Amino acid sequence: MTDRPPERIGALAVVRTVADLRRVIAAWHRTGERVALIPTMGALHRGHLALVEHGRRAARRTVASIFVNPTQFAPSEDFARYPRDEAGDAAKLASAYCDLLYAPDVGEVYPAGFAATVTAGPIAEGQDGRFRPGHFQGVATVVTKLLLQSRADVACFGEKDYQQLLVIRRVARDLDIATRIDGVPTVREPDGLALSSRNVYLTPAERAIAPALHRTLLHVADRIETGAAGIAAATAEGLAALERVGFARIDYLEVCDAETLAPLTTPGRPGRVLAAAWLGQTRLIDNVALRARPGH
Amino acid sequence: MTDRPPERIGALAVVRTVADLRRVIAAWHRTGERVALIPTMGALHRGHLALVEHGRRAARRTVASIFVNPTQFAPSEDFARYPRDEAGDAAKLASAYCDLLYAPDVGEVYPAGFAATVTAGPIAEGQDGRFRPGHFQGVATVVTKLLLQSRADVACFGEKDYQQLLVIRRVARDLDIATRIDGVPTVREPDGLALSSRNVYLTPAERAIAPALHRTLLHVADRIETGAAGIAAATAEGLAALERVGFARIDYLEVCDAETLAPLTTPGRPGRVLAAAWLGQTRLIDNVALRARPGH
Repeated sequence: MTDRPPERIGALAVVRTVADLRRVIAAWHRTGERVALIPTMGALHRGHLALVEHGRRAARRTVASIFVNPTQFAPSEDFARYPRDEAGDAAKLASAYCDLLYAPDVGEVYPAGFAATVTAGPIAEGQDGRFRPGHFQGVATVVTKLLLQSRADVACFGEKDYQQLLVIRRVARDLDIATRIDGVPTVREPDGLALSSRNVYLTPAERAIAPALHRTLLHVADRIETGAAGIAAATAEGLAALERVGFARIDYLEVCDAETLAPLTTPGRPGRVLAAAWLGQTRLIDNVALRARPGH
Repeated sequence: MTDRPPERIGALAVVRTVADLRRVIAAWHRTGERVALIPTMGALHRGHLALVEHGRRAARRTVASIFVNPTQFAPSEDFARYPRDEAGDAAKLASAYCDLLYAPDVGEVYPAGFAATVTAGPIAEGQDGRFRPGHFQGVATVVTKLLLQSRADVACFGEKDYQQLLVIRRVARDLDIATRIDGVPTVREPDGLALSSRNVYLTPAERAIAPALHRTLLHVADRIETGAAGIAAATAEGLAALERVGFARIDYLEVCDAETLAPLTTPGRPGRVLAAAWLGQTRLIDNVALRARPGH
């Protein structure tokens, strides 16, 4: 920002290069202000704004990044049609008192010759890792870059992408990245549907079915927590319920250890019930906590 | 270092945890002192001390790390018998005016649950990458960690491990690690043998043959630079020469682009002549620069 005025979109300051991002954040750090990063792919909704709000409680300054990362989409996926609305996103961030938008282009993040990759290991191999080859390597690599570009003190990720949160925690811890990784509870529509940028793809008929995903996960968790059903039986009931209400394809519905995502075999440890299922062309994911049952 | 006096070996201060390392370096950074990191596996020789010397020119403070990294040895390799002499190493570092030794144990670098990996892409796949499966992934991962643990301003690596230097440059650049990566010319015995911690493995008879590796690489480079031979012919001559003097097995002798390590087909670009070859149980590597011939 040496010789030119900083770019603004409405009320929000915007930087588009690593050098400019570091200059702004270094100035904050010099005055002792902590910085929270909220990495996003744009198409912001109230779930993202809850991340900004969390960031504002965790640090004096908040920086949102918007980067639709091509390397985390498989060739068959929706990279090209992924919703983009920078002006609308900037207005939302400004209204949430975000301090800075970092919106690099693809060439800034992946210059010519780029070749390195980061992987998280086994935590990235089950669940979504099985159905989205390369996805978590793309996530781990770009998030490593964003954390090291920004040198943020804390970074905020939604629990809606629960496996992603664990992948990022694993990578940050294992590579000694100094940024603290905070998970933030999923924000939902009144009927329980988890907010997602991909919900705009749903037809009205699909949108009417969609809340059954969350309802089913809660039901599975409740059956196990209360001891009304074992893990295998509750999982089978959940799968049947999703099929019954009209999910055309179910990638998985699994009851996992909340930390390792390994299959949970007894309810004696904290778990997570995770699912991915399709309505037409749209893939929805969701997850809920499963409390440990003491004595098991 | 809060409540206890810092450990010393002779004149040299030693830290063994990431937290202690960061505390010392953060104090230096607060007073504006730049820090150079010299990552080593110990068994130090004058080549390492040249790295310390380079670090002292590049930064006010120098930190050497000693960590024999298990993940960069293949199961068949010499991890267990790799030479270790911490007290001797510490004395050498102190005599070179190094400010700090960072000597973590394996559990500090790879705590329980560790699973992440860093890879550099194609630059790590040819040459040594072909003959030492997993080696460069181990190097890329541990060096990423050491750079992020130390937050050094500059890190120094010997050109003797030329491919390793390029791998680390690629990873540091691609992952936005803020540390500058400096390459330092190979230090050699008077007869040309590149200093290496593995030279101690050589029998007297093997030691007598060993300098032929460097001599051969220089000869190959000279034949190409002067136009006396083409790249393919000079390479074949070099291989024949190594066999003739008694190298039992030659992993490779290649003329490569100095930046990408792709095979060099014309002498119009800066190149590097690299080789790995065995004398008995000992694998030697070496490399020399190949000047571009203008007009080609």
